[in-house]
Amino acid sequence: MDEEHLRTLIRTIVRETLNPNLVPIGVSNHHVHLTEEDFQKLFPGQKIEMLKKLRQHADFAAKQTVDLIGPKGTIEHVRLMGPYRSHSQVEIARSENFTLGIDAPIRMSGDLDGTPSIKVRSPYAEIEIQGVIVAKRHIHMSLEDAKRFGVKLGDSMQVEVDGDGGRKTIFDDVVARPREDFVLEMHIDTDEANAANVGLGNNSFGKVIIKKKN
Amino acid sequence: MDEEHLRTLIRTIVRETLNPNLVPIGVSNHHVHLTEEDFQKLFPGQKIEMLKKLRQHADFAAKQTVDLIGPKGTIEHVRLMGPYRSHSQVEIARSENFTLGIDAPIRMSGDLDGTPSIKVRSPYAEIEIQGVIVAKRHIHMSLEDAKRFGVKLGDSMQVEVDGDGGRKTIFDDVVARPREDFVLEMHIDTDEANAANVGLGNNSFGKVIIKKKN
Repeated sequence: MDEEHLRTLIRTIVRETLNPNLVPIGVSNHHVHLTEEDFQKLFPGQKIEMLKKLRQHADFAAKQTVDLIGPKGTIEHVRLMGPYRSHSQVEIARSENFTLGIDAPIRMSGDLDGTPSIKVRSPYAEIEIQGVIVAKRHIHMSLEDAKRFGVKLGDSMQVEVDGDGGRKTIFDDVVARPREDFVLEMHIDTDEANAANVGLGNNSFGKVIIKKKN
Repeated sequence: MDEEHLRTLIRTIVRETLNPNLVPIGVSNHHVHLTEEDFQKLFPGQKIEMLKKLRQHADFAAKQTVDLIGPKGTIEHVRLMGPYRSHSQVEIARSENFTLGIDAPIRMSGDLDGTPSIKVRSPYAEIEIQGVIVAKRHIHMSLEDAKRFGVKLGDSMQVEVDGDGGRKTIFDDVVARPREDFVLEMHIDTDEANAANVGLGNNSFGKVIIKKKN
């Protein structure tokens, strides 16, 4: 373990010890997950290239971007996320439903039954992808975190977020997503970040409200 | 009192009796208030014309619109609100700070010290207006409502909003604004509406969380 990794680990442990209910916030901008097959249609002969690792170790922001073309409007330069998925999926903010002229529902990642389609355009091709959602807010967490919070997969949590002040907000309906390889992080979208005055960097924290057992 | 007015009044009383903590939600899109002097600069020889009355009886959406021109981007067709004010004021959503490339703070209406300026363009002229804010969420209410909720001017309230489901949110830092001529209505902006999955019509309700006295 190198020194930087060690410093981060110690800081995390100190923070969890002093404030066991704090959860780092990650603000998700609109993005697209692709199957390898769809990626090959859009970027023939290329490979998905990493631009930046994300907090969840398996995931990364890719160098490639695409445009989303809805019946009412277009959103350009939407970043692809890697690695490839078993089903392509487009995630937008609720406000962007109006921009694009579609009606994507609020759903967990992967829950794509009955979700709308959209045209996705690269510099090389244009394809139709079924599976546009507005991501339901959720908390990635380790199995240890889940034990600490007293929750299991799919449980609804409440998280208080104060951002940069003036807009304290308690987000309810936050879905618990414990998994062995997950790192503690609450994902909200840009609309939710703006509503709670959360900066778009990754330096904000929420406070999990632990529900007392009846 | 005509029949329609009477029906509305009775419906309101029934609702308040059955659910004394409900508050109608009004979603504010970006808009501009002007002094008569600034209006005359932008629309020489015209009068501000009413398009639609708002729930607060004194206020109306005007027929005239303007464009907001920031250093990074422009927002077109931003509606003027009447009547004239003693100080011109531009209200945008926090997300629009990024679109325009400015840094308007979260403030109550009229609290404009140190707020940024922006270029405002009509078909006839372009002027600079100092006083761009992101509106702090608040509840207009009658003096009767204030008594019922146990709050006074400037108090911070909590309101639970469930919108169309999946994004239940408790808005804290909601400022109480009782005044004799006000009608009960919580004002949130488009970012906040999207975060709580509130429709952009005027048919949603929040539930005031009454704090118990210590």
